[in-house]
Amino acid sequence: MVTIATLGEFALIERFFAPTAATLPTGVVLGVGDDAAVLSIPRTQQLVVTTDTLVEGVHFLPDADPLLLGQKALRVNLSDMAAMAAQPHWYLLSLALPKETPLTWLEGVVNGLRQAAVRPGGEVALIGGNTTAAPLGARSITITMLGLLGKDRAVTRGGAQVGDRIWLSGTIGDAALGLAAARGELTDLDEADRLYLTGRQQLPDPPLELARALQDSAYSRAAIDVSDGLLADLGHICRASKVGARLDLHKIPLSEAARRQVAGQGDALWPALLAGGEDYELLFTAAPSVQSQIEQLATQFGVRLSEIGEVVAGSGVEVSRDGVTLPMAQQGWDHLR
Amino acid sequence: MVTIATLGEFALIERFFAPTAATLPTGVVLGVGDDAAVLSIPRTQQLVVTTDTLVEGVHFLPDADPLLLGQKALRVNLSDMAAMAAQPHWYLLSLALPKETPLTWLEGVVNGLRQAAVRPGGEVALIGGNTTAAPLGARSITITMLGLLGKDRAVTRGGAQVGDRIWLSGTIGDAALGLAAARGELTDLDEADRLYLTGRQQLPDPPLELARALQDSAYSRAAIDVSDGLLADLGHICRASKVGARLDLHKIPLSEAARRQVAGQGDALWPALLAGGEDYELLFTAAPSVQSQIEQLATQFGVRLSEIGEVVAGSGVEVSRDGVTLPMAQQGWDHLR
Repeated sequence: MVTIATLGEFALIERFFAPTAATLPTGVVLGVGDDAAVLSIPRTQQLVVTTDTLVEGVHFLPDADPLLLGQKALRVNLSDMAAMAAQPHWYLLSLALPKETPLTWLEGVVNGLRQAAVRPGGEVALIGGNTTAAPLGARSITITMLGLLGKDRAVTRGGAQVGDRIWLSGTIGDAALGLAAARGELTDLDEADRLYLTGRQQLPDPPLELARALQDSAYSRAAIDVSDGLLADLGHICRASKVGARLDLHKIPLSEAARRQVAGQGDALWPALLAGGEDYELLFTAAPSVQSQIEQLATQFGVRLSEIGEVVAGSGVEVSRDGVTLPMAQQGWDHLR
Repeated sequence: MVTIATLGEFALIERFFAPTAATLPTGVVLGVGDDAAVLSIPRTQQLVVTTDTLVEGVHFLPDADPLLLGQKALRVNLSDMAAMAAQPHWYLLSLALPKETPLTWLEGVVNGLRQAAVRPGGEVALIGGNTTAAPLGARSITITMLGLLGKDRAVTRGGAQVGDRIWLSGTIGDAALGLAAARGELTDLDEADRLYLTGRQQLPDPPLELARALQDSAYSRAAIDVSDGLLADLGHICRASKVGARLDLHKIPLSEAARRQVAGQGDALWPALLAGGEDYELLFTAAPSVQSQIEQLATQFGVRLSEIGEVVAGSGVEVSRDGVTLPMAQQGWDHLR
């Protein structure tokens, strides 16, 4: 088997990471192949930077499909860009890989990254990174993504106002169920649902373009990407904005597959759905007056958007059904617990 | 024992990574605590970005001192900044840590990072990052560093010209010997030399301020930091600049400790010194006419600088002693072999 050690670090860079285009991507003064990358930032713009890591045995199973993994590694960073309403432009890739890693695995990851990097706003360009050895069973992929944003136009976690409506893209809890399904923890699950749910865990689809349109129209006041679970991430908005939030359980959007699981397992499943990680959906707040405009944008971008509750005075997140407050013990996915 | 899991991810961020100062660091519009950081880049400047990872079992031993490790993690990135002659300003920190990691270990790393971040040009500020779980025995620290540079002032690998002199800061091969010593592979070594050599491996000291002064004066034409070994990194300059290089073995600067090892082991040790990784010294080329000015700067910054050879027409690196070309099989440290 041809491993990455067969090729060696410098040949790897040459084969997978060296720029292929004759011209440098927009804004890149110096790209892959020197000690650092050099970027030219337009004077009307601010720089947005985020980083996220996927670790074997934590974020993906040893037999995870490398193509999907490459796509996911890039998309979880796109999700942070969406939360800030920034336009992603460049990324650095840090790989820690056991020497025994098959070359085909790396090839899959690189192809996945490239597929995910092509966006309506242009391709997110690889500008640097590094590849290092790692112990067996401890592959990791770290991406640092850089993007641009008009001056002081970032949609932060701190802008929510009392009376705002709370909006959520897509559906919630699928990734948590998908992970449980992959681990064989869901018994009463038909094949179509299993494929759908595991697919949602393997390949998030953050609504980047909608997020930017919402910001362009100045509709979104506070935003976050739901990566630690809906309750935890809404809690982050509440703390940063010094407000509370009230969610209506009837309004929480679930996929058909998740709905069937709730029907089978009953209410006991709700906390896991509301607190499960890796949804990578967009959660934001907006004034009630712009509801119809927001719904129009959602239709235009083909994204499901649901109004799920309201920003209130006070602190913390309260979930109620038919006017009755529900106890919610689990507050989200903590990466270290 | 209190582990990082006892505290949990959000409390960790609060305790170690949340900004303590009342005002944001220079250029930071939004720092730690949102989905991404936002930076304001002065219009006269370009952005310089680099990333480097330290992995347990590869770059450091399980019992490595966390304080030194934190310092090293930051300094290996400062070394890349030095090679480009950029002024470092901000960094992101990505940690992958087993849940069992003692809190005191993380405390040590964070203190080490802070110590290394204080520089004559101001403090390099933490602006973001993420912390995730990792398998046991697979701790890793990834830093992405961002800095600034006057427009088109980067000192790249591609600017060397035939006739240039080749300069090297500090001494070479100490880190390779230090690693061998730590592994118990060096037998004839007194305690003082062992401490010195292992110290050089644990804590690199890249000459950042000298590198910037050399660029300010436009003396350095091409530069790289010696991280993969002198021969490999000089080879990178040669390829990028489409030139060759001739080194004089008599001129290669060795520490007293390394000199004693050569005296004991003989010439067989030379390839390991010239190809050993992790020196994190500055290698650059400059016109012969500026030799005395360069020496003055070295004195001013208290950095040992040695002229070790010459840029020639052709390709590849040739090492000679007393006019005789030496065979050099090992071409440097490949992270994946």
